[in-house]
Amino acid sequence: MVRVIILGQGYVGSVFATGIERIKKGDLGYYGIPLGNELPVKVEEIEVVGSYDVDKGKIGKNLHEVVGRYWEGEIPGSLESIVVRKGIHLGSLHNLPIEAEGLEEEMTLKEAVEKIVDEWKGLRPDVIVNLCTTEAFEPFNNKEELIDAIENDDRERLTATQVYAYAASLYAKEVGGAAFVNAIPTLIANDNAFLELAKESNLVIFGDDGATGATPLTADILAHLAQRNRYVKRVAQFNIGGNTDFLALTNKDRNRSKEHTKSSVVKDILGYNAPHYIKPTGYLELLGDRKFIAMHIEYVSFNGAIDELIINGRINDSPALAGLLVDLVRLGKMAVERGEWGTVYEVNTFYMKNPGPAEKGNIPRIIAYEKMRLWAGLKPRWL
Amino acid sequence: MVRVIILGQGYVGSVFATGIERIKKGDLGYYGIPLGNELPVKVEEIEVVGSYDVDKGKIGKNLHEVVGRYWEGEIPGSLESIVVRKGIHLGSLHNLPIEAEGLEEEMTLKEAVEKIVDEWKGLRPDVIVNLCTTEAFEPFNNKEELIDAIENDDRERLTATQVYAYAASLYAKEVGGAAFVNAIPTLIANDNAFLELAKESNLVIFGDDGATGATPLTADILAHLAQRNRYVKRVAQFNIGGNTDFLALTNKDRNRSKEHTKSSVVKDILGYNAPHYIKPTGYLELLGDRKFIAMHIEYVSFNGAIDELIINGRINDSPALAGLLVDLVRLGKMAVERGEWGTVYEVNTFYMKNPGPAEKGNIPRIIAYEKMRLWAGLKPRWL
Amino acid sequence: MVRVIILGQGYVGSVFATGIERIKKGDLGYYGIPLGNELPVKVEEIEVVGSYDVDKGKIGKNLHEVVGRYWEGEIPGSLESIVVRKGIHLGSLHNLPIEAEGLEEEMTLKEAVEKIVDEWKGLRPDVIVNLCTTEAFEPFNNKEELIDAIENDDRERLTATQVYAYAASLYAKEVGGAAFVNAIPTLIANDNAFLELAKESNLVIFGDDGATGATPLTADILAHLAQRNRYVKRVAQFNIGGNTDFLALTNKDRNRSKEHTKSSVVKDILGYNAPHYIKPTGYLELLGDRKFIAMHIEYVSFNGAIDELIINGRINDSPALAGLLVDLVRLGKMAVERGEWGTVYEVNTFYMKNPGPAEKGNIPRIIAYEKMRLWAGLKPRWL
Amino acid sequence: MVRVIILGQGYVGSVFATGIERIKKGDLGYYGIPLGNELPVKVEEIEVVGSYDVDKGKIGKNLHEVVGRYWEGEIPGSLESIVVRKGIHLGSLHNLPIEAEGLEEEMTLKEAVEKIVDEWKGLRPDVIVNLCTTEAFEPFNNKEELIDAIENDDRERLTATQVYAYAASLYAKEVGGAAFVNAIPTLIANDNAFLELAKESNLVIFGDDGATGATPLTADILAHLAQRNRYVKRVAQFNIGGNTDFLALTNKDRNRSKEHTKSSVVKDILGYNAPHYIKPTGYLELLGDRKFIAMHIEYVSFNGAIDELIINGRINDSPALAGLLVDLVRLGKMAVERGEWGTVYEVNTFYMKNPGPAEKGNIPRIIAYEKMRLWAGLKPRWL
Repeated sequence: MVRVIILGQGYVGSVFATGIERIKKGDLGYYGIPLGNELPVKVEEIEVVGSYDVDKGKIGKNLHEVVGRYWEGEIPGSLESIVVRKGIHLGSLHNLPIEAEGLEEEMTLKEAVEKIVDEWKGLRPDVIVNLCTTEAFEPFNNKEELIDAIENDDRERLTATQVYAYAASLYAKEVGGAAFVNAIPTLIANDNAFLELAKESNLVIFGDDGATGATPLTADILAHLAQRNRYVKRVAQFNIGGNTDFLALTNKDRNRSKEHTKSSVVKDILGYNAPHYIKPTGYLELLGDRKFIAMHIEYVSFNGAIDELIINGRINDSPALAGLLVDLVRLGKMAVERGEWGTVYEVNTFYMKNPGPAEKGNIPRIIAYEKMRLWAGLKPRWL
Repeated sequence: MVRVIILGQGYVGSVFATGIERIKKGDLGYYGIPLGNELPVKVEEIEVVGSYDVDKGKIGKNLHEVVGRYWEGEIPGSLESIVVRKGIHLGSLHNLPIEAEGLEEEMTLKEAVEKIVDEWKGLRPDVIVNLCTTEAFEPFNNKEELIDAIENDDRERLTATQVYAYAASLYAKEVGGAAFVNAIPTLIANDNAFLELAKESNLVIFGDDGATGATPLTADILAHLAQRNRYVKRVAQFNIGGNTDFLALTNKDRNRSKEHTKSSVVKDILGYNAPHYIKPTGYLELLGDRKFIAMHIEYVSFNGAIDELIINGRINDSPALAGLLVDLVRLGKMAVERGEWGTVYEVNTFYMKNPGPAEKGNIPRIIAYEKMRLWAGLKPRWL
Repeated sequence: MVRVIILGQGYVGSVFATGIERIKKGDLGYYGIPLGNELPVKVEEIEVVGSYDVDKGKIGKNLHEVVGRYWEGEIPGSLESIVVRKGIHLGSLHNLPIEAEGLEEEMTLKEAVEKIVDEWKGLRPDVIVNLCTTEAFEPFNNKEELIDAIENDDRERLTATQVYAYAASLYAKEVGGAAFVNAIPTLIANDNAFLELAKESNLVIFGDDGATGATPLTADILAHLAQRNRYVKRVAQFNIGGNTDFLALTNKDRNRSKEHTKSSVVKDILGYNAPHYIKPTGYLELLGDRKFIAMHIEYVSFNGAIDELIINGRINDSPALAGLLVDLVRLGKMAVERGEWGTVYEVNTFYMKNPGPAEKGNIPRIIAYEKMRLWAGLKPRWL
Repeated sequence: MVRVIILGQGYVGSVFATGIERIKKGDLGYYGIPLGNELPVKVEEIEVVGSYDVDKGKIGKNLHEVVGRYWEGEIPGSLESIVVRKGIHLGSLHNLPIEAEGLEEEMTLKEAVEKIVDEWKGLRPDVIVNLCTTEAFEPFNNKEELIDAIENDDRERLTATQVYAYAASLYAKEVGGAAFVNAIPTLIANDNAFLELAKESNLVIFGDDGATGATPLTADILAHLAQRNRYVKRVAQFNIGGNTDFLALTNKDRNRSKEHTKSSVVKDILGYNAPHYIKPTGYLELLGDRKFIAMHIEYVSFNGAIDELIINGRINDSPALAGLLVDLVRLGKMAVERGEWGTVYEVNTFYMKNPGPAEKGNIPRIIAYEKMRLWAGLKPRWL
């Protein structure tokens, strides 16, 4: 069994929880889960055992009720037994039209962390999945500064994700091992402060920022061009979506977190920094979870010929990430069993937009996939 | 030095010859050549030493004049010294609005082959590049039948490409080694008759059908989806172009040759035969060498979500293939030096739409690229 | 009330019949019906009173059963009372994988016409809607030749649509007035033989070829460019669909019927015949009723600048046409009441790809719409 | 002759000046000029007689030099005789990486206006064309407030465009008639303060915001859907460009000016405010004057079917507007001759994104075109 806690019970967390239960009931195949059911740990073994949020409208409700906001189909009754608990806010929903409250309003951050770790010791998760709304943040890179910030209750310096990751390391230390999957842009697997802490605490960190949407596809298309030595003159990529994350990204500082992640792919894959505009761009509420993407690439071919590619997509945002999580929680459990404390580049490089550790870059996903299979003990598909 | 003969002096052959000379003069970088100048054999060492065609308007003209039909820029004077010779026709321009004549009008096929081999013994090519217009053909798969067809002057059974490939094997045998690069859909590297002959005759064959246009991109995009276990519901791909090859493909039988090549990619990459329509579709003269492609892919993501991708491209057809040929002639020379008689899957799988030998299929180009680099003695880029 | 007979009970006829009944039940708004419910004749007054087909699997079945092949939702019970009758075949399903039989197998064409007219005199339709599969045909342009062909039972010369239109004129003459809506490419409203007959027989003809799909959009986009005096260098337009009509169009002769219709729009709107490739292109069964279209337009702007537009669409084919039919049958009834025998350009020019009479061409739909409103006695929307 | 002054000698102004001279020399046709050479006032009669800017790098240079920054081709020598003069700045290049200076640094606004009017009395323009960079502005709507702001030297309240339009009214009053063409989003033809002033001063105002780029096309496509009563569920439209105007629009306040203009089109054409995201979105310097646009429209067709359209374009921004200006300056001269003081909706509705006066909205361009032709004394094309 893989016991999972969800931090941030929004679209992705709800699709994840629903999909897992539907698979258990036999209502659904394994589509959208990269490794399908090839791993020794089976999809059916995944169990959501806890959920945290700061939206007042969700705290205290059971998962069956909350999931109903995001999913129109029949919701498995098994979700009724999990109640959403109050988590850390620290402004993660700041500026958004949501009434929010966090544990830190009633106690210091240190106390909040202790309370959460206590709860986790009761819930016994193998893997903690972070799905908070995109935050404006500052990495630490220095373990002592991170610990000081917690000790000093420095609410300006810390984000919810950073506090949760810190709590995860305390929990892992106490129970002898756990995994923290960071699916949002806040740097955790790329922040040496957290990696150092993880190694000391028997924590596995996967991160950062789940590789969904247009960016992984862009990476593979750029690799396609790079391998033909076509010179990319420019790349323009737009996104427009309707879920809370897009709304959050209309905030400039949050957007900056995302922009970094997305832009590094150009240099990493091409080897030169082709002029590009790659940003989550707009919010249109009625798109809901759907995303419209457009990409324009212009390049030079042999004998100076100029070609162009135009790519458009209509993509459901949350299922794409939720499908990756089905692998990530199982790989997290496997990494814990193997004692691979710190982070695992072979996993991150396929599943994450900004694969940690920081000194490593992006490689084409098609190759990353094979490396990841090898790490997971599976036969490569084409190598 | 790499001495090259071009069979079919159309768009691709002209862009190839021009580009090589422009690079020698320092007018052009290595863009569009997958391996740039990384190989021990340098781009500047390539020398076109002969050219064949069956268009009456080209035979007897020098390359400088012929290239002028396809390329508006300044044409290097060095092309003046090569005169286009009369080749094998066998209906390869049949139905097209071009006045054509072949050697076989004046002699038997056997005599024509002898004449050509004699000329080649004078020109001393290392590599013979086949760029004939797409043909309607029947593979042989049996060496004896092939030889009989030549002996019996069976003009219904043979195509120009098959006769040229046969001539190449005779030539290779006499001079101790040569390479034949088949850039068109006629099966040569996938036809055991030719592979057997090649092994006996010190011939290297690369083929079949140069991997340009939309199909290699489709392969990589399908691989991207396959690696996320997304279920592809359908693929529609259209092409419209304005060069002679598109005009030829309005002929049903020729089109069938192409269709096979393009369609196999779906099954090879996805592992199942998703419904697809992938065909060169239309001819619009004024597009000239430019091609307009459109692709529509619909797939199932996690939790049953339906996504779609729409890809459009405006692509210069001939430079894409000409850039690949710059590598292929050098790799051909290297294979001859290594004595790798027969065919080389590691080369074909990256450069060819229908990589021989027949029993091997398509793999994602991004991985094929790394395998090819390894074969060529280069460091892989990302593996 | 508007009493309607459907000829060819396929996708369009089934969506039409279902949609009308769903509107009556209040399940559906008026979306997709250009005039909504603005006309004096209300949508709710439309009544399907008869249906004809030549597919053995449909003849003798009731509409409720037949519609179920095309529409997954709940089907109104009111459709149970109409039984599909055997019609004229004349090869209209020739080459398609459908077992077909026509009245003409049991009798002469003249007898078949008489039988049908008799049935219609019982069913009392105001409007007969022709939705046969696209045919290969030859226009008559001469009334006597048409009548001779019927008299001589000339099955090679006549198509099902031509025979039905002839029957409609006999029926109209007998009952004092009726309308025939030709929604397929066979020329009827553009064939003087039928127009002459119609004027003598109190028949109103609307046609030819319902203006759905990409072509009307192309017309409006070309008009947009023409009004800015941008010079269109070329237009490429592709279609791929999965319904019987697309399958039928893979047949070259049928395709030619369609091509003419679609191509004339370029010259009509731009005033010059810009190079273009506009054809229904491919059949991909699993697209079902959905169509994927792609269009590429390149044009010259001020000071010689070159711009391009790329348009893609995923369109449900049958509802688009069915929505137009809801207007056309009501306008047909109105034209009968006004005694406008022959054809009505003001109606055709908005609703038809190839608006009759033959001497008139296409105008931008946006303007055609206003002219049509004026004819219908409605206020123009923007004029 | 039509004597023209350009305010803001950037891309558009330079393409305009170059194009006119190239046409006079016979180097260029009339493509991109909506009315071609149909008007009684000929294109060849247009003469640029003066130019203003606030970029230190342009002031004092002649047009031949300045145009060279934007146009790579040969520049007509006739442009050497016009020297760019210093204009009003008022922060119109604020925040942009351009060193700027305005007359108002040396004198009061009132004095600057007087100086400019004096210069104009010497240059004797018939038409003054405003091409300033997009500004953040506040409309006046009250003539007295506008005059007070000038008198009180209120530099916070006024923008360059507003000051220029005020100057134009003074100039028109003195010379007995002139036209002011406002091609940028600042409201002038939609601001009653300016309209009132214009009527008293013999000024014709055309405005606001030249109808180029994606918005007019969107208008016509939405009209196409509206006429078929298709219900538009949502519209997403993106733009990315590389000229100064896009850079300026990365500033939030300037962007807001633009957003209003673009969004109103949805409600005006559809009759309801379909959810939409229509904004100039990104700046990518290397696109230069080229713009990449992407649009996604989803709508409901008959029987509840959901269709979608995806439109992409690569458009040269400045030639599109420059081509419209060739008409606008001639129509401006005609309006002056007819004494149509104030503004002319029939002209604005075709040429402007936000056609004044304020109480009038957008109509489909295809219809607007015909109304404009009628106003200009030309035969409608299709009506």
